[in-house]
Amino acid sequence: MNLPESPTEVRKLIRSGKWSSPTTGVAPGYVQANLAMLPREEAFNFLLFCVRNPKPCPILEVLEPGVVEPTIGPGADLRSDLPRYNVFEQGKFQGQVQDVTDIFHDEMVSFLLGCSFSFENGLVAGGIPVRNLEEKRNVSMYITNRPCVPTGPFSAQLVVTMRPMQPEEAVRATQITTRYHLTHGAPIHIGSPEVIGIKDLDRPDFGDPVTIKPDEIPVFWACGVTAMLAATSVPLPLVITHAPGHMFVSDLKDEQLTLF
Amino acid sequence: MNLPESPTEVRKLIRSGKWSSPTTGVAPGYVQANLAMLPREEAFNFLLFCVRNPKPCPILEVLEPGVVEPTIGPGADLRSDLPRYNVFEQGKFQGQVQDVTDIFHDEMVSFLLGCSFSFENGLVAGGIPVRNLEEKRNVSMYITNRPCVPTGPFSAQLVVTMRPMQPEEAVRATQITTRYHLTHGAPIHIGSPEVIGIKDLDRPDFGDPVTIKPDEIPVFWACGVTAMLAATSVPLPLVITHAPGHMFVSDLKDEQLTLF
Repeated sequence: MNLPESPTEVRKLIRSGKWSSPTTGVAPGYVQANLAMLPREEAFNFLLFCVRNPKPCPILEVLEPGVVEPTIGPGADLRSDLPRYNVFEQGKFQGQVQDVTDIFHDEMVSFLLGCSFSFENGLVAGGIPVRNLEEKRNVSMYITNRPCVPTGPFSAQLVVTMRPMQPEEAVRATQITTRYHLTHGAPIHIGSPEVIGIKDLDRPDFGDPVTIKPDEIPVFWACGVTAMLAATSVPLPLVITHAPGHMFVSDLKDEQLTLF
Repeated sequence: MNLPESPTEVRKLIRSGKWSSPTTGVAPGYVQANLAMLPREEAFNFLLFCVRNPKPCPILEVLEPGVVEPTIGPGADLRSDLPRYNVFEQGKFQGQVQDVTDIFHDEMVSFLLGCSFSFENGLVAGGIPVRNLEEKRNVSMYITNRPCVPTGPFSAQLVVTMRPMQPEEAVRATQITTRYHLTHGAPIHIGSPEVIGIKDLDRPDFGDPVTIKPDEIPVFWACGVTAMLAATSVPLPLVITHAPGHMFVSDLKDEQLTLF
């Protein structure tokens, strides 16, 4: 089966239950988003957490309580149009489901946050190798020693993704990703993983390890998983997130979000 | 009296009642901020209004309810360290005061938003004429026909500032102000004022008119007054804002806020 090309087509396949795999590579050129749904009582604090930590938690859209059709995907339903969801109750993981229509309710607020798929397209277009794409693996993610700015009950250590490259490519990658300020923007760290608390690049906390060549340095970007850790750091009655890699595919084009 | 140079010095003069004038030109190179204080019940909606309308309402800092010392001005007190405040009750203007310590209370949330003073410094440094500075007038501001994205009870028409310049300077000014994304960023419109609902450039809705030379075109930037109109568009029990031109002077340097 060919990968679906349009966001509407992707969402239709997902809603009908015909697509439950990760969304990597589908609808190329369109923005994909992290999803977090949580009770309105804590929506102010979570929104403020995102505002205070914009590199890991870039806000694409926040919906009114109970609303499930985002403006960045007209006709979509956030309860059914992602291929897989993680469900948490009282901060504890309850399992994965393919539809949350029966548990989402009118007092829940949905947050859509930017994802690094956008800037990976930009890196590839700019001739920068993206190892996880080359090796068809999930990107390597690490929990750092850098605390986010805590807000209300929410806190998290910053999570980063890592892509290895030549030093001169790291300069160009910094320039390119600066344009993508709503999808994590410029790197937060280059080189020396130990400085940000990463002991072994071959053992990521999430995702897969990738090959690092002897003359390459690791380049680190803030990662949306940070927001998921923050949202589930508190024993709220119900929190719903996308399952890693199973994103919301929006109608926005990557190039519509760039700063310049 | 010479203009005070450091933010701490400015705030001390203001707090002691020795400075109640506009803050234009004080502590050059330091970020000045718009202030809005409103009840926590509507803090989520107002924060979301700002997030959805980032060009007029760039968020520098949002404080916890009742907190008055911002991280961007350690030692400052937002109740006394601005030279002049506007007070609104039930959406109606009550008057100007130099201190709000007696009316601010623990259920109020303070918002600090970016201000165009930062990018004006950048324009001047880049050799772009800033007519309102040259003529020592307040910048010209206009209410446009462009609605902001409404949120909860908050709505406003977009307010813009206008600076006239040569067409080639408009290109350079666009490049320069793109760097200042937290202080209104790139222009929202160039030329043809009628397209955005402005009938007469010589009659601004706020501020002063400035000279427009025959070979110049008007360049328009989103303006923080938009946020003030939104905050007072709702009959809340109490809303406090800075008085126009009487800003909070922070410890942040303009160049710390630029995107690149």
